Amino acid sequence: MGLFSKDIKTLNDLFVHTLRDVYYAESQIARTLPDMIGKAGDPGLKRGFKTHLDETKNHVARLEEVFRMHGVEIKGIDCPAIDGILEEADDVAGEVDDERVMDAALIAAAQAVEHYEITRYGSLIAWAKQLGRADCASVLQRSLDEEKATDMKLTQLAESAINLRAAS
Amino acid sequence: MGLFSKDIKTLNDLFVHTLRDVYYAESQIARTLPDMIGKAGDPGLKRGFKTHLDETKNHVARLEEVFRMHGVEIKGIDCPAIDGILEEADDVAGEVDDERVMDAALIAAAQAVEHYEITRYGSLIAWAKQLGRADCASVLQRSLDEEKATDMKLTQLAESAINLRAAS
Repeated sequence: MGLFSKDIKTLNDLFVHTLRDVYYAESQIARTLPDMIGKAGDPGLKRGFKTHLDETKNHVARLEEVFRMHGVEIKGIDCPAIDGILEEADDVAGEVDDERVMDAALIAAAQAVEHYEITRYGSLIAWAKQLGRADCASVLQRSLDEEKATDMKLTQLAESAINLRAAS
Repeated sequence: MGLFSKDIKTLNDLFVHTLRDVYYAESQIARTLPDMIGKAGDPGLKRGFKTHLDETKNHVARLEEVFRMHGVEIKGIDCPAIDGILEEADDVAGEVDDERVMDAALIAAAQAVEHYEITRYGSLIAWAKQLGRADCASVLQRSLDEEKATDMKLTQLAESAINLRAAS
């Protein structure tokens, strides 16, 4: 997408643009999760992040499937939103000086990532349906369902044990 | 918060840090919404953004109330996440060359902002409760409820008319 041209002329252009944004975002998340796994102290949280790393790799593969189904080139584009979310996660983690507080901070950071993905998949699915691509919508829905389930699991982990330990 | 010191030693420090992050985020959103109101073509969307601008100003005031209740200085800190989300919204809007597609893009951008706020208020509320500050949690909950309601209204607007027009 050029800086000096207006390349989004149709809803289909917006769909493809956002698909490429999420493709970049998922790839960056897959690159960042090993670091979060390394920082997590709670075994349940470490396990949760590992599972989500596997899911994230699947989401990247699913996006590639959607690119192919829709007949457009597989590529990512810069996504300042996920860059900012991940930069902030890294900044905060760099300031935490207690392992139990770190776990609470990591959960919050991971939930910010999940919510970014939830909102983008939500838009992509609505647009795919509007464009008559129920087949693409259905593939994207599987990733959305997993992102929502991960967000809920993180809330449960935080509320069942990690916040309590962080406050002790 | 210093670059070379680890200033977050307790869950309370993390709570105050995140309160300041959201305070900065809400202030930036209040500054950005007039531009989104200007760009929106659909009268319902324009009205929705105007209502949300009023709510956002209330959220800023509520955060100031929580700072006072908790006895800490009212101040914002840099929030690369919201900066990235708003930068991306501006980049995408700058590439859209059709008024109906612009409305679809604006809704998606606004929902990314809503989801960022939803996740941060969710963490803040859980931590406030853990810290024995049910009073702060209750004030923050009112803003969270409004963010969720706005997100739902935006989905309804998109699915009832705006995506259809954008695809036509």
